[in-house]
Amino acid sequence: MFQIALDILTKQEAKELLTPKMLNTVDIVEIGTPLIIRYGLSIVEQIKDWIKGDKILFADTKIADAGHWETCEAISSGANMVSVLAGASFNTLEEVRDATQLNQAKMVVDIIDLSLSDESKIKFINTLNPDYLCIHLATDVVKKGGSLLEFSRQLSFVSSRRLPLMVAGGIHPQNLLDILKNIQPAVVVAGSSITKASDPELEAQNMRRIIDETILY
Amino acid sequence: MFQIALDILTKQEAKELLTPKMLNTVDIVEIGTPLIIRYGLSIVEQIKDWIKGDKILFADTKIADAGHWETCEAISSGANMVSVLAGASFNTLEEVRDATQLNQAKMVVDIIDLSLSDESKIKFINTLNPDYLCIHLATDVVKKGGSLLEFSRQLSFVSSRRLPLMVAGGIHPQNLLDILKNIQPAVVVAGSSITKASDPELEAQNMRRIIDETILY
Repeated sequence: MFQIALDILTKQEAKELLTPKMLNTVDIVEIGTPLIIRYGLSIVEQIKDWIKGDKILFADTKIADAGHWETCEAISSGANMVSVLAGASFNTLEEVRDATQLNQAKMVVDIIDLSLSDESKIKFINTLNPDYLCIHLATDVVKKGGSLLEFSRQLSFVSSRRLPLMVAGGIHPQNLLDILKNIQPAVVVAGSSITKASDPELEAQNMRRIIDETILY
Repeated sequence: MFQIALDILTKQEAKELLTPKMLNTVDIVEIGTPLIIRYGLSIVEQIKDWIKGDKILFADTKIADAGHWETCEAISSGANMVSVLAGASFNTLEEVRDATQLNQAKMVVDIIDLSLSDESKIKFINTLNPDYLCIHLATDVVKKGGSLLEFSRQLSFVSSRRLPLMVAGGIHPQNLLDILKNIQPAVVVAGSSITKASDPELEAQNMRRIIDETILY
């Protein structure tokens, strides 16, 4: 699946990006953490309203505590998927899993804050069986030249392919094919490569075509 | 210093808690992550307006990425202190340090998501010299019987006392004295023990008295 991430944007910019053509090109609309902290979870309701409720909405809540409450709050705002940080406590991760399952929503564990030496946490996450494990390189690292593909090579989550993978962090048409072939993700996330493009619809369609061709042939 | 944390509350409940007596009892008002994700950062502006701007405001943003942007967004909403997760990337932690210093705000590194085996991260945080290091046990762990004091015994941040410490997670009048004596924190945070008390002002005053007596004598 293909996901557009709406991050450092105003409400108006987010609305203008969600054209019918864009919505035909993506499967999932991510309401990024910056939008959530700027506007609160009511932005999820508003986006659901704009797009007439026919797309999967992922609220990138990056939950670190209060797992049950924050999950339920995001779901009641209209989210179908929520994220929890891999670094969160075992209890928090369990609360998010239980609350998403109870509400027929999907749980994304984001490894943006995971210490790769933490064997017990990696084992626990595998046991927890989240719907998606997000291989995520921070945008602050991408800006400094970090590579998602190099990062992914260190990860047993990638080599084992036990969990469905989401990939995020500096993905654009030029590195997409390599990422698809090497990581075989279930969900590809693109943020600023689409939202800052001179023609966002065209950029999204280019990435969509690469994804479809790689999966089909 | 003594800090009240406003977490899982409605805007109205938060407002009712911030009486003149409460504001005379605490030094710092924390706008907790649940309030921020529920209402967005405009809740910081509103609280600043209610309390006439004479208290330190801590926005518990728990930044995991987009360090510069999220820090500036919180500060421009009126926050004097922001938090970043210990699990965040080195680049993100650096961005938050730079943005807080540039804006005369304080940086809190929250170890709620830190893997205690991550020696390189612990070393990096010490080098970074944040204004406060928050020894934080997740509320989801406290609910299951976790103890802040036991948790703190495993931490070199506590034994070395290199950085000013903030302590949070299940602190109430009964365990406060032990926490003060053993951890010697610069900031004590109390959330639900005050906000869910039958008499929140009295509970806060009790804790304030214990803090003042322990520091003075």
